[in-house]
Amino acid sequence: MQTTLDCLPCFMRQALYTARLATNSAELQKKILTQAAHLLPELDLNLSPPENSVALYRMIAETAGRPDPFANLKNESNQLALELEPLIRQRINNAHDPLAFAIKFAIAGNIIDYGAHHDFDARQAINSCIEQQLVINDYKELRREALAAKSILYLADNCGEIVFDGLLIEQLGPKKVTMAVKERPIINDALLADARKCGLDKICTVISNGTDCPGTPLHNCSEEFQEQFHNADLIISKGQGNFETLSNSKAPLYFLLTAKCPVVVDHVNEIAEGDKKAGLGDMVLLRAGEPR
Amino acid sequence: MQTTLDCLPCFMRQALYTARLATNSAELQKKILTQAAHLLPELDLNLSPPENSVALYRMIAETAGRPDPFANLKNESNQLALELEPLIRQRINNAHDPLAFAIKFAIAGNIIDYGAHHDFDARQAINSCIEQQLVINDYKELRREALAAKSILYLADNCGEIVFDGLLIEQLGPKKVTMAVKERPIINDALLADARKCGLDKICTVISNGTDCPGTPLHNCSEEFQEQFHNADLIISKGQGNFETLSNSKAPLYFLLTAKCPVVVDHVNEIAEGDKKAGLGDMVLLRAGEPR
Repeated sequence: MQTTLDCLPCFMRQALYTARLATNSAELQKKILTQAAHLLPELDLNLSPPENSVALYRMIAETAGRPDPFANLKNESNQLALELEPLIRQRINNAHDPLAFAIKFAIAGNIIDYGAHHDFDARQAINSCIEQQLVINDYKELRREALAAKSILYLADNCGEIVFDGLLIEQLGPKKVTMAVKERPIINDALLADARKCGLDKICTVISNGTDCPGTPLHNCSEEFQEQFHNADLIISKGQGNFETLSNSKAPLYFLLTAKCPVVVDHVNEIAEGDKKAGLGDMVLLRAGEPR
Repeated sequence: MQTTLDCLPCFMRQALYTARLATNSAELQKKILTQAAHLLPELDLNLSPPENSVALYRMIAETAGRPDPFANLKNESNQLALELEPLIRQRINNAHDPLAFAIKFAIAGNIIDYGAHHDFDARQAINSCIEQQLVINDYKELRREALAAKSILYLADNCGEIVFDGLLIEQLGPKKVTMAVKERPIINDALLADARKCGLDKICTVISNGTDCPGTPLHNCSEEFQEQFHNADLIISKGQGNFETLSNSKAPLYFLLTAKCPVVVDHVNEIAEGDKKAGLGDMVLLRAGEPR
């Protein structure tokens, strides 16, 4: 999907939030906001929002001299998710349909996104998500394709959330799954180090997509990743950033996300078939690509 | 109060909202957002947010070729308030303390602010405000000063809201009240034409403050207004914009507002004495100036 004018105030909001995370210097914060304002007119609205955000986050990291302003938040969310893991695994294993339940937890885990929302109580958010129904729910198709697939590429999103991704991967059959994370720090997206901290490397293959984009801009990804992407029988894409960069893909791909911004909500609804429409905060399981 | 870094994303958000009101052309909307981004680094953070917003709104009006993008919304809010007026006047007259009740309605009327919040149901907002208590409430002092005052300057804020201001002015004693509105169109602020449409000119003297600033930047106001300001026994200031521009004033001045932005909430709490603190959406009646 393309960047809209609505994304521009949001980029400024993200710049301010990240500037305050990255530095306590009021002078540097002001410099970052000024430089962010200068960047806005340079953005290419034909690119997706995550692609446009790369320059913004790189500028903030450089100006503040902090290559990874979200490092502490990422560690905290990994830690929090690891604490919740045994309880959630138990709930999944006790469920009538463990795969369906694991999917729901993996989508609920997507609430842990420091890039879009900053005030949250992860436990409460996860509990309330479990009570929510998926408003767009291509579960039957996903289940069928997942059982038939010999190789699944799983596009991770954020730290913390990857722990719940691991529980879903356990249900999908970890031997056939490759998880892809980001190459270098960007917002709170999971890196190889996070996958290791959360034990993902012990249950499946983990690779990087080769970028520091908070999504999957295919043409910028590493050759290794592109090969995996093109050869996988099934791709599972987590979160808004991967959706924003892959929404026009024709690959055998399912988007699992919580819709956290109005622009994403609109685009989800453009793609979804049928009458059911997502609203802000709704959980979505959506088949991309060719008509089913 | 000064402009903070939090105001910068908000200016972009206001620019987008106003651009869409002002023109249907996607090209012009983009041009407006681009020019807004160019303006941000030029702002003087030592000035108040309303003073900084003047250049932004002028640029939008010029670029879109629409000197008054809020014209329709202003007419609608005047109309809506005039429809509610007889009912509210009756409720005020039946109240145990009509002045206190009229103040509450006048503050509730401040919800009708298209500049800060765009989705609202005025009737519902007003009803729920009536149920709310003023969290900071210098009513006793205001009542005493208002009874003693021989001249009251009433700084109006928005269209629609001025109808409720009129009901408060009826309680204050309209003969001693002068209402000040804005000289030229800015957001949804009331102008002389609005005061006339809403019948304010029939109950009290109405003047303009000489500016197109969504507040009262005293040094930029007309001589006539400044004279009124310095000579009034009491000044009643409605809304955030007037508060933002006059928060450091030592005049015998009361702020009546609904706190709609976190920056204003913080500044209200800096000024307020005592333990009670305002939160977002709270209604406030706050004495400015010298200690009581």
